[in-house]
Amino acid sequence: MTTEFLKVAQAAREAAAELAPLPRAPKDGALRAIADALVAHAAELVAANAEDVERARAQGTSEAMIDRLRLDEGRIAAIAEAVRQVADLPDPVGEVVRGATLPNGLELRQLRVPLGVIGIIYEGRPNVTVDAAALCLKSGNATLLRGSSSAYSSNVALVKVMQDALEGTEVPSGAVQLVPGQSRDSVKELMRARGLVDVLIPRGGASLINSVVEESTVPVIETGVGNCHVYVDAEADVNLAVQILVNAKAQRPSVCNAAETFLVHEKIADVFVPAALAALREAGVTVHGDERIAGYGADVVPVTDDDFFTEFLSLDIAAAVVGSLEEAVAHIRKYGSAHTDAIVTRSQGAARRFVALVDSAAVAVNASTRFTDGGEFGFGAEIGISTQKLHARGPMGLPELTSTKWVYTGEGHLRTSEGTVVAG
Amino acid sequence: MTTEFLKVAQAAREAAAELAPLPRAPKDGALRAIADALVAHAAELVAANAEDVERARAQGTSEAMIDRLRLDEGRIAAIAEAVRQVADLPDPVGEVVRGATLPNGLELRQLRVPLGVIGIIYEGRPNVTVDAAALCLKSGNATLLRGSSSAYSSNVALVKVMQDALEGTEVPSGAVQLVPGQSRDSVKELMRARGLVDVLIPRGGASLINSVVEESTVPVIETGVGNCHVYVDAEADVNLAVQILVNAKAQRPSVCNAAETFLVHEKIADVFVPAALAALREAGVTVHGDERIAGYGADVVPVTDDDFFTEFLSLDIAAAVVGSLEEAVAHIRKYGSAHTDAIVTRSQGAARRFVALVDSAAVAVNASTRFTDGGEFGFGAEIGISTQKLHARGPMGLPELTSTKWVYTGEGHLRTSEGTVVAG
Repeated sequence: MTTEFLKVAQAAREAAAELAPLPRAPKDGALRAIADALVAHAAELVAANAEDVERARAQGTSEAMIDRLRLDEGRIAAIAEAVRQVADLPDPVGEVVRGATLPNGLELRQLRVPLGVIGIIYEGRPNVTVDAAALCLKSGNATLLRGSSSAYSSNVALVKVMQDALEGTEVPSGAVQLVPGQSRDSVKELMRARGLVDVLIPRGGASLINSVVEESTVPVIETGVGNCHVYVDAEADVNLAVQILVNAKAQRPSVCNAAETFLVHEKIADVFVPAALAALREAGVTVHGDERIAGYGADVVPVTDDDFFTEFLSLDIAAAVVGSLEEAVAHIRKYGSAHTDAIVTRSQGAARRFVALVDSAAVAVNASTRFTDGGEFGFGAEIGISTQKLHARGPMGLPELTSTKWVYTGEGHLRTSEGTVVAG
Repeated sequence: MTTEFLKVAQAAREAAAELAPLPRAPKDGALRAIADALVAHAAELVAANAEDVERARAQGTSEAMIDRLRLDEGRIAAIAEAVRQVADLPDPVGEVVRGATLPNGLELRQLRVPLGVIGIIYEGRPNVTVDAAALCLKSGNATLLRGSSSAYSSNVALVKVMQDALEGTEVPSGAVQLVPGQSRDSVKELMRARGLVDVLIPRGGASLINSVVEESTVPVIETGVGNCHVYVDAEADVNLAVQILVNAKAQRPSVCNAAETFLVHEKIADVFVPAALAALREAGVTVHGDERIAGYGADVVPVTDDDFFTEFLSLDIAAAVVGSLEEAVAHIRKYGSAHTDAIVTRSQGAARRFVALVDSAAVAVNASTRFTDGGEFGFGAEIGISTQKLHARGPMGLPELTSTKWVYTGEGHLRTSEGTVVAG
C-alpha cells in the first residue's frame, strides 16, 4: 500500500470514529455548510471542470459523454440543493431496531450505527462525488471516493471545497476523502484495504462490478446491473401489457431498471406480439426476437443467446415466446441479473406464482420495471440499487448505509450453568 | 471445478429454488422427519462415528478432542431434539418487513425471502452438521456442508440419513448436501462457487475465517472470533466488577464471548486490582498484566503486545491499567475483534459514552460478556455470531439467514418525466 493511500485511508478511519457518535444536528449543519460552499465556490469548480472537459475533448470523447462530465453554475446549484435535501432526511443512526427486556431482566436493544468507512468506486458524472459523500456523511460514515480519472480535476476541486467547508463544523474534515492518483493501482489499493475500509460500493457497468467482486477483500455491495424482463402472461390485458412494455423499455433506456427482454406466453402471442412490435417500432426500438417472434414482423432481428444475457441500455430489446409461466421464470433465472422483473396479468394466481418463483431484488406486477428506484419507493435518496442478497437488496437509502450494534444493560448479571444470577 | 463438486452444488441450487417458496408446514414436517430418522438410525450413526473416533485415536488425538467428536445414542437423541426445537420456531420467510401504498397507488411490500444456497465450513463437532442443515432448511435455504475431515465418516452418515428422511417429504432431498472429499481443494471449490452458492459462513478459529475471507469470491459472513474486554470504570462497584470479570473469563473460557482482557481505570486500580487478582487466582486464571497490574500481585505474568491481540480461549487473561475511559476505548479498538466489550460502572454518563464509542457487535453494561448469544437473546437458535458489519452483526438467528425481495403491484402504472401515469 502506498503511503499516500494509507494516509487518506487512515484519516478517513479516524474521522469515522469521531463522526459515528454525532447526533443529527451537527451532521445536518455540516451538510448545509457543504451546500453553501459549493455555491460560493462555483466559479473555481467550473474552472477545474473545464480542465477535464478540455482533456476529454482532446482525447476525442463524444459530445454526449462531455455533456455528462460538464459542470456549470446551474448544475452546481442543483448539486448543492440535493445536499440540502439529504440534510432534510431523517437520520437513520440511533434508531432502535429491536429491543426487549429479557426474562432475566437484561435490557436488550439493537441500535442502528454507521458502517464506518465506505469506499465508492464510480464512473459517473462528478455530481456522484458530492451525492455519495453527502449520503455517507448523513448516515455517519466517512467516505473514500475513487471516481473516474476523466473527472479527476473536478473531483479534486469538489472534495477540497467539501473538506474546507467541514473545517468550520463539528464533523471532522477527514470524513470526505478522495483516493489519490488516477491509476488502476489506486483502485486495487482500495479493494485490498481490509481493516481500513468497511464496505466498497462499486457504481458502474458490469465489468467494473465484476472486477471489484473478484479482487476485493473488503466486503462489497454490488449495484446496478439490470437485465430486467417483462413477462406477458396468457391472461394479460394486451393494451396494458403493450404500454407497460414500451414504458419499461423506452422511457429511459440507459438506466438499470429499463427492460432488456420481453417474454410472452404462447397463448396470447398472436394478439400481443403484433401490437407490441408496432408500438416498439413507433418508439424506435429494435426487437431481437426468437423465430416465433420473428414470424410476426419482418423487421425483427434474429436473437442470439448472448442477446438474452445483454444489458443493452439502448433502444434494443430481446424477445421470446414461452410455453408457460414456469418457462418464463426459468428464462429469467438463467439470463437475468436479479434486478427487476415484471409480470403483466389479470390472473391473481399467476401473479402470486410469479412473485413467489422469481428470485430478484424487485418483482413488479402490472407496473413498469422503471419504478425500482429509491426516489419512487419514498427513500428520499438512493446510493445505488443492490443486486446482491446480503445486507441490502434493491434500492439502497440511508438505512442501508448502516449496521447495528447490540447493547445490553444489567445490574451485575452473570451467566451460570443454572441460568442467570445477579451479583449482590 | 470438479464434476463431483459441481454435481452437489447444482443439486443444492435446484433444491433451493424448490424450497424457497414453500410455506412453514412442509418445512416443519421435513424437520420432524429428519429428527425421527436420526433416532431411528442411531446405531448406524454411532457405527460410522466409531470409524472417525478410531482414526483420531490412531493419530494420537487428545481424549478431549475425541470426546468432542464422539456420538452416542444419547447425543443423537439430543441432536434430534434440537431439530424438533427448530421446527417449533417461527418461520422468518414471507414476513412483510416494510410496506406502503405509495402516493401513486403502487402497493409496495418488502418480503423476507431465503438467501438460496448457504455454504458452511466448520471445524466443530458432528452435531453442527445437523444443526446448520436444520436452521438453513427452516429458513428456506439449501445447505452445502464442509465439515472437518476428522468427522468425515460421521458427516457422510448424518447427511445420508437427512437426505433419505427428506425423500418422503415435500422438501427436496437435495436441500442438504455434503461437499464431497476431504482435501483442502474441496474448501477452495466452495469458496470459488460464485453464482452457485449465495453465502459462505465459516465457523471456527481465526485462521480458518481469515483464509476464507481472503480467498472467497462468494460473499462471506465472518463469525465467532471473540477478543472480548471488560473495562472497569473509575466509578465501578468493585464487588460487582470482580464478579462480572470472573464470570466473563472463567465460566466457560473456551467460547467466543468469554473475556480475554480486562482494563481498569487508574483511579480504582488500588481497590479493584487486588480483589480481582485474588478472585481470578481462586478461579485458576493466569493474569498477563502490564507493569502497574504486576505491582499488585507477585504471580502476574508480564503481558506482551501479542497477548492483547490473543483470543486465549483458556484460563488466561491480559490486563492493563488505563488513564481514562477514552484510553480503554482506544485499546479496545486497537486490539479487539469487535465481538463483545463490557463496562462496569455506576455512572450513567460513562455507560452512555462507552456504548457510543465502542464499535463492537455487542456492548454490555454491568453484565457479563457471556450473554452475547442467540439463545440468551431469545432467538431460539443460533447459526453463529457475526463479527462483521454487513448483513448481520452479533448473534445470528433465523431472520439473519434470509434476504428480502421488493414486490410492487399496480394496475398499469407507467413512469413518465411528469410522474406516474396509469395506462387506460
